[in-house]
Amino acid sequence: MTHRFTFRRRVEFADTDVAGIMHFSNFFKFMEVAEHAFYRSMGFSVHPFREDSTGGPKVGWPRVHASADYRLPLSFEEEVEIELLVEEIRNKTVGLYFNFWKHPDNESEKVIAATGRFTVVCVTFDEELRRMKAVAIPDEWREKLSVAPDGLIPARTP
Amino acid sequence: MTHRFTFRRRVEFADTDVAGIMHFSNFFKFMEVAEHAFYRSMGFSVHPFREDSTGGPKVGWPRVHASADYRLPLSFEEEVEIELLVEEIRNKTVGLYFNFWKHPDNESEKVIAATGRFTVVCVTFDEELRRMKAVAIPDEWREKLSVAPDGLIPARTP
Amino acid sequence: MTHRFTFRRRVEFADTDVAGIMHFSNFFKFMEVAEHAFYRSMGFSVHPFREDSTGGPKVGWPRVHASADYRLPLSFEEEVEIELLVEEIRNKTVGLYFNFWKHPDNESEKVIAATGRFTVVCVTFDEELRRMKAVAIPDEWREKLSVAPDGLIPARTP
Amino acid sequence: MTHRFTFRRRVEFADTDVAGIMHFSNFFKFMEVAEHAFYRSMGFSVHPFREDSTGGPKVGWPRVHASADYRLPLSFEEEVEIELLVEEIRNKTVGLYFNFWKHPDNESEKVIAATGRFTVVCVTFDEELRRMKAVAIPDEWREKLSVAPDGLIPARTP
Repeated sequence: MTHRFTFRRRVEFADTDVAGIMHFSNFFKFMEVAEHAFYRSMGFSVHPFREDSTGGPKVGWPRVHASADYRLPLSFEEEVEIELLVEEIRNKTVGLYFNFWKHPDNESEKVIAATGRFTVVCVTFDEELRRMKAVAIPDEWREKLSVAPDGLIPARTP
Repeated sequence: MTHRFTFRRRVEFADTDVAGIMHFSNFFKFMEVAEHAFYRSMGFSVHPFREDSTGGPKVGWPRVHASADYRLPLSFEEEVEIELLVEEIRNKTVGLYFNFWKHPDNESEKVIAATGRFTVVCVTFDEELRRMKAVAIPDEWREKLSVAPDGLIPARTP
Repeated sequence: MTHRFTFRRRVEFADTDVAGIMHFSNFFKFMEVAEHAFYRSMGFSVHPFREDSTGGPKVGWPRVHASADYRLPLSFEEEVEIELLVEEIRNKTVGLYFNFWKHPDNESEKVIAATGRFTVVCVTFDEELRRMKAVAIPDEWREKLSVAPDGLIPARTP
Repeated sequence: MTHRFTFRRRVEFADTDVAGIMHFSNFFKFMEVAEHAFYRSMGFSVHPFREDSTGGPKVGWPRVHASADYRLPLSFEEEVEIELLVEEIRNKTVGLYFNFWKHPDNESEKVIAATGRFTVVCVTFDEELRRMKAVAIPDEWREKLSVAPDGLIPARTP
């Protein structure tokens, strides 16, 4: 049994560039905003190393990989729907997949403007080493992520 | 005896917006970059609360005021010269004034595209209160700031 | 008779900086987002030079002045309420005033984190000159702005 | 015969986030800045659709793919060397590969902090269709790109 997680966001003036469309780097910011909204939807804080609302473990989720494929431009003022799918859960990492839906309110015109992927790694802050350390994903997270949104994801190709 | 501090920066693609010119908010980023380069030029680190290269006190400089007045747009790829002037040194705060020089390499075309002001406050991190606290500007900073760039600054008007 | 315009926005990860709080330049982006939402609320598109939904004149609103005064930091994930007030309507320019309300859902803790001002100028794109030209504010805009939100605004001081 | 193109950039305050390091999305901005500096180094303007200094064809280079792999964080004030390599030249697209060198001035400590890839497509602005259209890479560009920097690039893996 699966469900989808979606997040709406309007393209703001500061997101655009001189080419008149959303700057390609801002798709990554939108993906991150959707990711964090997804975590909050499961009751987790995404503040790095802050105890979350469940009193759960203080973990952070820096990314070790980020990618995007662009098909259609997004314009200023346009509202886009970012769909988040959990692609893979490993011991210490999670793979997230994103679809950017253009014209999300119009079934016949709805179309994917871009897709993206994150690989995020579960870390805690090691007080002794004074740096982040990868750790196994806590059970509270693993359980919620496992019933998290999935869906039709194209096979990963080289 | 006075001197000027200047910093060059090219307008990057991501700095522009759909209107085809540098987004107004990025003038503030350029001002901050010039400010930090100015501090480094005096031998100070600007990392918040990190000991600087002189072993000096760990101070940070958050701003309590920022403003800009825009006269001419800046275009993608254009190189602008940001001139920093020390306008005022008080007990805990410093007033900085900025000129954005368009066509900086052409004496006859050189013109001010924008001006700006920062009021920055000297802070340390109070370990007990777990928050920043305003403090008197350390002597090492005060001395260097006092011989720092100044120049013709228009009178502050309402 | 007056009314207020407010806009909610969550501080996103990319809005923060190494000091752990929202970067000062992003308050200006939030102010612009609120401004554009305000224009849309009156039925106007804010796309520069695009005909708006009312078939109205193609005007844009670049800013000639922007300023902010910071009192309290905003943290990652925090939801802030941006209150927009119309401070002044002149022939070609409009003065906007902004309050950033921290803890907006808690009457007893609600507090202003920052205030800001924009002076925006009404422009059209002059096809002959190939550049923007300031024009008198169209009547459709002036009428709606005149009944637009105002409120208690501190006297402008030097 | 090959050569390398490198570009230096300091991590600015506004590039960092609450985790204390450069926000992952800004690696993409740095890659783009290096790409544009590379084009300028060959005598081409990178302004979309503006005639370049050689009077050459008005082409733009939007990206259809962008990716990054992160190994080590970059800190505020740190200077990083971005190395650009031309990975592939096809009929209408170019593949670019990037290495982010940390500690670039210290041969024994020099290490790759991140790598990235762009696939950029050559476009012109179709006046009739009022939108961008992919075109074959002009000879002037192809010739210069062909003698452009290459180097040891890891095989592309899924």
